[in-house]
Amino acid sequence: MEVLGEAGRLEAQGREIIHMEVGQPGAPAPLLARQAAIKALEVGRIGYTEALGLPGLRARLAEHYKETYNVEVPADRIAVTAGSSAGFNLIFLAAFNPGDRIVLTSPGYPAYRNILKALGLVPVEIEVGVESRWCLTPEHLEEARKSGPVHGVLVASPANPTGTMMTPEALQALVSYCDAEDIWFVSDEIYHGLVYQGTQETALRTSNRAIVINSFSKYFCMTGWRIGWMVLPDELVRPVEKLAQSLYISAPELSQIAAQAALDATDELEQVKAGYARNRELLLSGLPVIGFDRLLPVDGAFYIYADTSRFSNDSLAFTKAMLAEAGVAATPGADFDQTNGDRHTRFSFAGTHENMALALENLGNWLK
Amino acid sequence: MEVLGEAGRLEAQGREIIHMEVGQPGAPAPLLARQAAIKALEVGRIGYTEALGLPGLRARLAEHYKETYNVEVPADRIAVTAGSSAGFNLIFLAAFNPGDRIVLTSPGYPAYRNILKALGLVPVEIEVGVESRWCLTPEHLEEARKSGPVHGVLVASPANPTGTMMTPEALQALVSYCDAEDIWFVSDEIYHGLVYQGTQETALRTSNRAIVINSFSKYFCMTGWRIGWMVLPDELVRPVEKLAQSLYISAPELSQIAAQAALDATDELEQVKAGYARNRELLLSGLPVIGFDRLLPVDGAFYIYADTSRFSNDSLAFTKAMLAEAGVAATPGADFDQTNGDRHTRFSFAGTHENMALALENLGNWLK
Repeated sequence: MEVLGEAGRLEAQGREIIHMEVGQPGAPAPLLARQAAIKALEVGRIGYTEALGLPGLRARLAEHYKETYNVEVPADRIAVTAGSSAGFNLIFLAAFNPGDRIVLTSPGYPAYRNILKALGLVPVEIEVGVESRWCLTPEHLEEARKSGPVHGVLVASPANPTGTMMTPEALQALVSYCDAEDIWFVSDEIYHGLVYQGTQETALRTSNRAIVINSFSKYFCMTGWRIGWMVLPDELVRPVEKLAQSLYISAPELSQIAAQAALDATDELEQVKAGYARNRELLLSGLPVIGFDRLLPVDGAFYIYADTSRFSNDSLAFTKAMLAEAGVAATPGADFDQTNGDRHTRFSFAGTHENMALALENLGNWLK
Repeated sequence: MEVLGEAGRLEAQGREIIHMEVGQPGAPAPLLARQAAIKALEVGRIGYTEALGLPGLRARLAEHYKETYNVEVPADRIAVTAGSSAGFNLIFLAAFNPGDRIVLTSPGYPAYRNILKALGLVPVEIEVGVESRWCLTPEHLEEARKSGPVHGVLVASPANPTGTMMTPEALQALVSYCDAEDIWFVSDEIYHGLVYQGTQETALRTSNRAIVINSFSKYFCMTGWRIGWMVLPDELVRPVEKLAQSLYISAPELSQIAAQAALDATDELEQVKAGYARNRELLLSGLPVIGFDRLLPVDGAFYIYADTSRFSNDSLAFTKAMLAEAGVAATPGADFDQTNGDRHTRFSFAGTHENMALALENLGNWLK
């Protein structure tokens, strides 16, 4: 936020800033989605929908699981939500009781921790590192349970801020462990679709008790539409429906209509993804040359998480200097990891290829 | 929900049903709002906004307070939310601690109770009746405080399901009492704009510490857009901003753009309101003739709350019979009031004038 605010101030002064701090696609929603929304606006009223979403969208999402993973998911286990944010709120309230302990990885998406705390739950953050390829393992959970019961585990794969993805085997092992130990497994699959190496796997392959959170914000380029979905175990469908009815009434109808169309916009979305892939190649070859030579594996998403400790052990000071002196906005690692984050910086490559090349040049000159 | 489900089943069988159970306008969003949304869709990307909303919309809402009430509200005390639902979630989390007791009226909107309970807060429901013109008074609060501390009071005026509105004097007395006693006053002003008799007043006239919740769903006909706003005391702005950032990221951007245009669509919206006023006149004269002769004062909103105890003391059974035999869907009072609701029925007059006339005819024949 501080970096964002400062970037805005510099731009207001006429400075050119390259935005590598953003967590959202530069591309607009696919044309099919926007056309569907325009048609709905011309035709008539945008009203409340069923609390769990329009039946057509839920059915289409069920097909999506068949198409994408060859996994059978009945539409009545799918809940359409106002972005993944609503999914987290709903599942935290539906599956847990106040004081329950939920394991998260550190580094990780800071909103997880914030939402859990706001709802009276206890985040248990586990530092992951290179020894487990930045992923959570059953051994981590065994360790965490020594200090108290664990009621839930939340994992993002591919992850923010690291971009690393669990292998299908690592995911399966973790989901199976949670199932056997009666721990809710929450799988944040928001970066699915944006995978450059390795095999993308859904937790649903292993267990019908896994809770999957997903969204149209990343692959589908629909951040500001606030639209996502969950796949729920049977026993949580009705509790989530009741909570959603009270807490949200429904997800925005126009966004639901557009989202359904977006599921058919594969050609356009694959082109956007190809752009990310080109940016990723450019940065993975260029960053080490200019001095950022300790990068985590970038399996998916649109982030590069760099160990920048050879330049600074204060990530906020480092990104502020980078912004002021090189005109490049990035996100300090401390946002994602309260222990080791200060030695890291997150770069987003969701921008244009031109800007990525320019960023390399500016950063190179600056580091000299 | 049961009545809704049954109405759907009957319609699927080809039966014509008149919908007087709905809590949303029949009219679409105003043309200006839909045009603004279409333009935004043609131009480009719909992204996240600032957590508290687009600065232009917040500034326009500040003007709205000047225009509508001649009250000065700085834009930086206004938070744009994903409907009033998000407003309630955010303020309950920002202003209260788990276990805090919040006073509500009964009858009242059932989601209040449900959201409070989901968030670990304690709803304290007070039965209001004809002796206080269906409104909450400082005496009610004095009484409630005998059984425990009261941390907040939530009042809707005009109210759902009753349609009754507090007089400016009654509102002022209640707000002043809360201020003096350090109790947060939450004023749900969602039905403002839809007032047929009496003077509409905002709690902000009396106190800068009043928390106002409002929405584009009712007067502005934008239910499915999930867009609303709050006016906050200075000290709650930053806590709400932080929670909103984590729990919602932002309200849907397209809805924010459309909402700003809707604030200038007064001509179209006043025509919609004139339609409600005609429906109200028709029902207020026609319902007593056919036997519904005990109606609460209908100052505002689009609801008539009828004492139907001369026909039944089981409101669900009564509305089910009404649906099956007269083809009119209404809402059982038990949804709004766990004590006296069974003797009441809520009729919404947000439908067409034609349907309201037909409902009177069908209900008249049925009651004979």
